Amino acid sequence: MALARAFASVASLARQGESKLSFASRAFATNTTVNGVPVEVHNEGGSKRVVVTKTLPGERWLQFLINAGCRVEVSRHPDIILTNATIKQLIGTKCDGVIGQLTEDWGSELFEALKQAGGKAYSNYAVGYNNVKVDEATKRGIPVGNTPGVLTETTAELAAALTLAAARRVPEADVFMRAGKYKGWLPNLFVGQLLQNKTVGIIGAGRIGAAYARMMVEGHKMNLVYYDPYPNKQLEEYILLYGELLRYRGEPPVACKRVETVEEVLKEADVVSLHCNLDASTRHLINAQRLAMMKPTAVLVNAARGPCIDEAALVAHLKANPEFRCGLDVFEDEPAMKPGLADCPNAVIVPHIASASLWTRSGMATLAAANVAGILSGYPVWNKTDILGFVDKPLAAAPHAAPSIVNAKELKLKMVE
Amino acid sequence: MALARAFASVASLARQGESKLSFASRAFATNTTVNGVPVEVHNEGGSKRVVVTKTLPGERWLQFLINAGCRVEVSRHPDIILTNATIKQLIGTKCDGVIGQLTEDWGSELFEALKQAGGKAYSNYAVGYNNVKVDEATKRGIPVGNTPGVLTETTAELAAALTLAAARRVPEADVFMRAGKYKGWLPNLFVGQLLQNKTVGIIGAGRIGAAYARMMVEGHKMNLVYYDPYPNKQLEEYILLYGELLRYRGEPPVACKRVETVEEVLKEADVVSLHCNLDASTRHLINAQRLAMMKPTAVLVNAARGPCIDEAALVAHLKANPEFRCGLDVFEDEPAMKPGLADCPNAVIVPHIASASLWTRSGMATLAAANVAGILSGYPVWNKTDILGFVDKPLAAAPHAAPSIVNAKELKLKMVE
Repeated sequence: MALARAFASVASLARQGESKLSFASRAFATNTTVNGVPVEVHNEGGSKRVVVTKTLPGERWLQFLINAGCRVEVSRHPDIILTNATIKQLIGTKCDGVIGQLTEDWGSELFEALKQAGGKAYSNYAVGYNNVKVDEATKRGIPVGNTPGVLTETTAELAAALTLAAARRVPEADVFMRAGKYKGWLPNLFVGQLLQNKTVGIIGAGRIGAAYARMMVEGHKMNLVYYDPYPNKQLEEYILLYGELLRYRGEPPVACKRVETVEEVLKEADVVSLHCNLDASTRHLINAQRLAMMKPTAVLVNAARGPCIDEAALVAHLKANPEFRCGLDVFEDEPAMKPGLADCPNAVIVPHIASASLWTRSGMATLAAANVAGILSGYPVWNKTDILGFVDKPLAAAPHAAPSIVNAKELKLKMVE
Repeated sequence: MALARAFASVASLARQGESKLSFASRAFATNTTVNGVPVEVHNEGGSKRVVVTKTLPGERWLQFLINAGCRVEVSRHPDIILTNATIKQLIGTKCDGVIGQLTEDWGSELFEALKQAGGKAYSNYAVGYNNVKVDEATKRGIPVGNTPGVLTETTAELAAALTLAAARRVPEADVFMRAGKYKGWLPNLFVGQLLQNKTVGIIGAGRIGAAYARMMVEGHKMNLVYYDPYPNKQLEEYILLYGELLRYRGEPPVACKRVETVEEVLKEADVVSLHCNLDASTRHLINAQRLAMMKPTAVLVNAARGPCIDEAALVAHLKANPEFRCGLDVFEDEPAMKPGLADCPNAVIVPHIASASLWTRSGMATLAAANVAGILSGYPVWNKTDILGFVDKPLAAAPHAAPSIVNAKELKLKMVE
């Protein structure tokens, strides 16, 4: 009975999350050019004009803008990273709002162009906003949005995917198969590492680090050792209780400990995953000396920031230690790799796709659009961390608010009660 | 305090498992030829002669044979699959025991050759023994060993690795990076699927299926739907309790249900993993009609047996549904793939490496060697399912027994009390 109730309740939650929106606005998009830049236009008759600098995933985001009466113009410029000149062409002489990218330089030049065009809202399509000079927006009265709250699990799952792919040599084995090299089963073909009952080490136990730690502890019964200047009490308490559940069931328990130095994590762990911010203290946190402390069969994962690892030192370490493996989502000189990395079979390397799940990327698009649509509609700013009402609820039930405006306080914007 | 105690106890368990054996027998190996076949010889002066048809991983296995007074000759023949003629050359006129491979044909011809050479023991380096005609060994008084008990978690982890690699497009993204195609971050680059809170489906909830299910349920908070002719009560009870732990912590619970048909699993699940045996009822279990029932964005994983999937139908389905993904460790015509599979970017394909972790493969080698060494030493047969004493304990503490002899009863071998 309890099981049936639990299942019914979860199934009902899942159904809410799955509700599909059926509208065909994208099908009616037309193509044109704005000051020589090709764009895709949605809801041509909309009274407000919103520019989106890159094609975004999903369709829900578009509906937020259309419901707010916006004509939406999505750039189809072939350059991967748009110059300020191109973005100013897109803004033109009349533009109410923009959704832009982390790769663009949102400072005085672009915010001045947006202000001159009558712009009242900007949102980054990202949770971070290193690319935005927020004070330049604030001094022109332009709210700046970002997209927090939908990246944690997707990013942690990519770190888990890199861990397993590196430990079991999946990309290397996949290339071998496709090359037609498999001629018969062999005892020594692509022998990798079992995770079960080993030790996972985390540098930085914030939201993403803790989510990844739980995937490894609960999914693979690994013990956790972590370094973070601040203890994550919630994580420690959870693992303690989880270990008690295992013990109650007669299974070997798992355990968790926080250590005082990065070095202790590196020496003890079979898998080490970085989940720290990038600052002066974490630049080249993993260097030649610290790599030498790690187990020769360890797996090192980085889905945080490229410069946290001295990548040239890592290449040398990978070449000298064929049983050492790594999984990298980010790179020191992104999009470039240090010489030699692409030749290392013991590295798994992917192009900064940690947040690239359809759910997260659609959610980011929805939050960015809801930021711009909310401000243009005169809605207050959402002041709660749970933003799932914007991304998972039926559209009609979405809050009438701008989900995340980073300079709301400076601009004295009204908040949701 | 409870946390510290738990950690200390687990750390102590972990240390036992890590005990390293330091002996240098492999360093003293010499190379020679036997009837024209190149072999590597260990413990040249041993009084019993044991032939091993392929190089095995690890070193612990060798010590079992050396401790039993065996001279060990490991084939270095360049053929991936040895013919009966080559194996008979290796057996020669005096051979006490053999460790052979799943890819070899152990029937009347080879067992007769072994018997004529004075052979008293054979072990497959595998848990399965489809390649062995056990009655041909039994009628010649030759015990046949296999290597159960060390494959479950490693195989389940490979299925998990394939699931995550397929959901997040890791091998495809890795090839893209190495080809130098990454020019800058884009919202639509390698967008995959989040597993968290979705539904995992299992066909076959035996040991490996249940271990995989728990990795997905606990690691990624997925709901489980499974088909198996027999309910797995232990798994269901565990997930019920685990869901209660999540609820107690204020997190969304997970749930588990067994359904009456394969079709219900296919329709409901976002990820489907096969963990059934191969027999008449499961050959082409997944065919064109059943593939069409699956969600167009589903992930299908097979680390069980190749012919459980109609591979030609799967290739057609992958081509018609670019958002459908699969992870395959086994193939219908292994080592060959059906035409077109190698061209599908939405397939992750690896060469039958589900049991390829160093721990498991070393453990399999140790069990195979302990089978042969145990019989040649006159030890009784181990009759318990827990065989970790052979693979993880210090060598001196290993049981004096042959760990797993499949025809022990027929041969009336003495069992451990």
